Amino acid sequence: MPKIKFLPYDVEVEVQPEETILEAAMRCGVYIDALCGGMGACNKCKVLIEQGEVKGEIIEENYYKACATYPVTDIVVRVPLSAQADRRALMRKPRRRASALSLDREKPFDPPGKTIYIKLPEPSLEDNVPDWQRLKRVLESSGFENPEASLDFMRKLPSTLRQENFSVGLILYNHKPTKKTLLFDIIPGNKKKEDLGIAIDIGTTTLQLELIDLDTGKVLAFTSDYNPQIKYGEDVISRIEYTRRKDGLKTLQEAIVKRLGELILELGESAGKSLDNVRVVSIGANTVMTHIFLGLEPKYLRFEPYTPVICRFPPFSAKEVGLPLPETTMVQIAPCVANYVGGDITAGVVASKMAEEEPLTLFIDLGTNGEIVVGNSEFLICAACSAGPAFEGGGIKHGMRATLGAIESVNIDSTTYEPMVLTIGKRKPMGLCGSGIISLLSSLFRAGLINKAGKFNTHIKHPRLREGEDGWEYVVVWKEYTAIGEDIVFTEADIENIMRAKGAMFAGSQILLESVGLSVFDIERVYLAGTFGTYIDIEEAITIGLLPDLPRDRFFFLENTSLKGAKFAMLYKDELSKMEEVAGMMTHIDLSTYPTYMDYYMAALFLPHTNEELFPSLKQG
Amino acid sequence: MPKIKFLPYDVEVEVQPEETILEAAMRCGVYIDALCGGMGACNKCKVLIEQGEVKGEIIEENYYKACATYPVTDIVVRVPLSAQADRRALMRKPRRRASALSLDREKPFDPPGKTIYIKLPEPSLEDNVPDWQRLKRVLESSGFENPEASLDFMRKLPSTLRQENFSVGLILYNHKPTKKTLLFDIIPGNKKKEDLGIAIDIGTTTLQLELIDLDTGKVLAFTSDYNPQIKYGEDVISRIEYTRRKDGLKTLQEAIVKRLGELILELGESAGKSLDNVRVVSIGANTVMTHIFLGLEPKYLRFEPYTPVICRFPPFSAKEVGLPLPETTMVQIAPCVANYVGGDITAGVVASKMAEEEPLTLFIDLGTNGEIVVGNSEFLICAACSAGPAFEGGGIKHGMRATLGAIESVNIDSTTYEPMVLTIGKRKPMGLCGSGIISLLSSLFRAGLINKAGKFNTHIKHPRLREGEDGWEYVVVWKEYTAIGEDIVFTEADIENIMRAKGAMFAGSQILLESVGLSVFDIERVYLAGTFGTYIDIEEAITIGLLPDLPRDRFFFLENTSLKGAKFAMLYKDELSKMEEVAGMMTHIDLSTYPTYMDYYMAALFLPHTNEELFPSLKQG
Repeated sequence: MPKIKFLPYDVEVEVQPEETILEAAMRCGVYIDALCGGMGACNKCKVLIEQGEVKGEIIEENYYKACATYPVTDIVVRVPLSAQADRRALMRKPRRRASALSLDREKPFDPPGKTIYIKLPEPSLEDNVPDWQRLKRVLESSGFENPEASLDFMRKLPSTLRQENFSVGLILYNHKPTKKTLLFDIIPGNKKKEDLGIAIDIGTTTLQLELIDLDTGKVLAFTSDYNPQIKYGEDVISRIEYTRRKDGLKTLQEAIVKRLGELILELGESAGKSLDNVRVVSIGANTVMTHIFLGLEPKYLRFEPYTPVICRFPPFSAKEVGLPLPETTMVQIAPCVANYVGGDITAGVVASKMAEEEPLTLFIDLGTNGEIVVGNSEFLICAACSAGPAFEGGGIKHGMRATLGAIESVNIDSTTYEPMVLTIGKRKPMGLCGSGIISLLSSLFRAGLINKAGKFNTHIKHPRLREGEDGWEYVVVWKEYTAIGEDIVFTEADIENIMRAKGAMFAGSQILLESVGLSVFDIERVYLAGTFGTYIDIEEAITIGLLPDLPRDRFFFLENTSLKGAKFAMLYKDELSKMEEVAGMMTHIDLSTYPTYMDYYMAALFLPHTNEELFPSLKQG
Repeated sequence: MPKIKFLPYDVEVEVQPEETILEAAMRCGVYIDALCGGMGACNKCKVLIEQGEVKGEIIEENYYKACATYPVTDIVVRVPLSAQADRRALMRKPRRRASALSLDREKPFDPPGKTIYIKLPEPSLEDNVPDWQRLKRVLESSGFENPEASLDFMRKLPSTLRQENFSVGLILYNHKPTKKTLLFDIIPGNKKKEDLGIAIDIGTTTLQLELIDLDTGKVLAFTSDYNPQIKYGEDVISRIEYTRRKDGLKTLQEAIVKRLGELILELGESAGKSLDNVRVVSIGANTVMTHIFLGLEPKYLRFEPYTPVICRFPPFSAKEVGLPLPETTMVQIAPCVANYVGGDITAGVVASKMAEEEPLTLFIDLGTNGEIVVGNSEFLICAACSAGPAFEGGGIKHGMRATLGAIESVNIDSTTYEPMVLTIGKRKPMGLCGSGIISLLSSLFRAGLINKAGKFNTHIKHPRLREGEDGWEYVVVWKEYTAIGEDIVFTEADIENIMRAKGAMFAGSQILLESVGLSVFDIERVYLAGTFGTYIDIEEAITIGLLPDLPRDRFFFLENTSLKGAKFAMLYKDELSKMEEVAGMMTHIDLSTYPTYMDYYMAALFLPHTNEELFPSLKQG
């Protein structure tokens, strides 16, 4: 990959695939005027190419739009005065995403639901046990415990066995946690049948589905959509509240089941595959989403003593749960731990293997709800933080989900207070997504526009800092450059929401660690789960005190671990048992009743924190 | 009970309830002319009441019809010359049924399928496990292994638990052999629900059904009928043959399922009970009947290496097998041992407890097929004898099943060669049932009308002994006294059939005993299973060499042990496991391939046997 040297900063950075000069600048902390989110509308981001070859939008000789120009060779770029911050911009640490930790696993796969091919010893006078016993004998000796079959299966058994000299294929589902093997069909011979699986992450906000070839592990199709329950409530609490209305549970359940059904049909169509061969649907979801999906009363999750209906799920028939798949497709669901620590977390922890390894790991899943797990192969403690949906844009005036047009990173010039803005897909800005919010908050703080308490320094006079209808606010993008016909602003109320969310997360981690006599500095790895973890800038997240101030190489992003865990549980039949082990091993701490939680939480409502000793790298900065 | 003294024989007998003087005479070996089966048509059975009081049909002063007169006090009866045999009749041993062995068991019952009532500890912050886990915990600690429930059950769970402070009733089925508990419904509180069960014996010839109250063990209704498959074949072999036709299996299966369904509805109606509360259907049946009932290919039972499809049955849903009962009614079937030793036998052996006790027992089930088991708590060996249906009247010219009008006992005067005949229900004779056939054969032999080889002594000139269209025959009842408009005869071909059947049974027992180094004289108990065993006269059966010549007090009749075993398996959940243990413990000997079987069989084709040493009590006689 070519390198870019930015002058006058003398900062060099290797570009990433399809990265514009503007994006590279944002990443390495170089400020370039860019008001329009990188879509090429504002014409402010003009840079001079002093050396090397580029491909892109030329404005005048050797001057290119940084937002629409890509290096072809190593280049030297001079950021012109008009687009240049003072040298303090150099003080800013380069943006840094956590390292990607690939969780992918090797073959051989051992799916719980699939077609297996076996040859039985043929019967003789010396060994004339019944056909079913003969079959069971072989299955049980191959680790398929307690085979069960319907009467229809038994009816097919004798003739099918004898069709190809006792060589048969068996479509089965082996549920390890209950040591149970369900046989669904028997076919003569050993002609390979396709075995498919569908992994689903039912997030409070987002649904993600993958159609998997269970032989190759290949993703044949992927689709995602919003959880259609959003309109009935943004977070799990409001969903539970909704179920208390007449037919509320039914409404929510039908909404999710219907949408998943549509998405499943879409998967089949887009991959050109028959859903008849789907053996397993594997689901990762939090406790509330799981309850509602199954039509189980979630009310008691919300009130003392917070009892779920069920946490370790038997396999259900797809028909039983209402999905448009054969009755013999088994739906397996990752086990939950407690009311607000669900199967998405057990799936994620198992997918990450943190519970099989020694390093003390902090696992953070920052979705609509924030869940944290601390532990290693010796112990696991977990808690749910009532972080709320702020990191998904919820409760933020111009918050939005991380889709096209969402501002995903911001750099504010600490002299001019002008923002450099990048949006997803380089579209006209529509709002702020989670990573944009963190980026913005951290930028405002570093630029001195807000103080440690998250209040605007209103003595600074600047057109972007003004009193709006909701109190003081900072204008991130002027109306003329937005796609929404109004200024995109960030209010003090927004900041309060974010502070509460990050404070809850940080205090939660501290409580978990304290409960086992450890501190944040004992953490050897931080695993960031969820799509959000992929895009988050760890420097910025540490700056605002969301993540602990640890050496940056200890941070890893794991993407959607709920979906990954669900997928692994379709490819390796032992995964579900491992999840149950993990669920059983996890000590769940209810933060709301934990004696010192409130103190920790209050102390965390500062930038980065009341106790600066916890953020040594920021103190030096 | 009053006593009767018969003169001039000086034989005294205590009458049994509702027994006529004629029946008492038949039982104690006193010959009285009675040509019409005891229905009062022939007027031959006139007797003089010398002392005591009687109630009945008077012919002239002090003379009564023996077939229609009952003693009120102790009486003295003189059999007049006209109705009197010579004194050799006295030589005849009194008829003797085997002793009844009551298998009934005591409470407490512990049915596998029932409503149980439990109170769960209420949840608290210290114990807030999921509702399902709370329920499972209590169930598992009460011995209900691996509870399973449908999603619908889970949906009802939380609200039902909380309706009456965690006091609930659970409708469940606990299958001990697979250590599995299926929960079907949950109801609030502890208001008693009715639990019913249906025990079924699917005999090759006869169906018997009982509707049982599972709380009291009481039989609420009983019904029986012929197996509707009879018209497609009398025995198991011909049924298997029929299934090889196009749709043959389906035809037979539908016939039995339909008829059982009708009989089940009849049970419900006659007891005035809702079949919704039937928790279990428990079935005892031979291997072929079971296969056909379940729609399982029986073909391979008939051909080497004689493999059943399945011998240990999981519980099936009533709906799955096609019975008109709720889907949650479980159908449990007694386990089979081999192609011709089925669940009727394992049910019978377990009902009899012979496998739990020390005495060496010969268990004989003489139905359409004859099965024998030899053993005790130490070992069990079993075999099926291809006895054919002769003892059920099959293959006998005037053979018939044991219903009204069937001749059930015969005594032939050895001077006059005239028979004394009794029919079931004292109706006009219609034919010969099994016990009548044995009685007749033994009478013919004792009267000297046939020789040891089972051939008629044709030098005896008597109108009843004649050459008919099928060879030599004996006229049992003249046309004028029958209900069928023709003479009821017993042919030499009939005798051959019986000889083969009894020879097969006797030789089978010998083989089983020989295989463990024992002889017939080592048998400490003979258990006669099946209705036939109840009515058989053991003296006569020994006379013809069907039963071994052992002290008569070693013989016990057990009635329908298949039905009883099925019933016990509904009242005590451990019974099914015991049956599987017994099935597993049984060594099955295939007589047809056993080296010395043919020799034993040929030797047994005599009356009573080639080897008279085997029948010492007859030799002396």
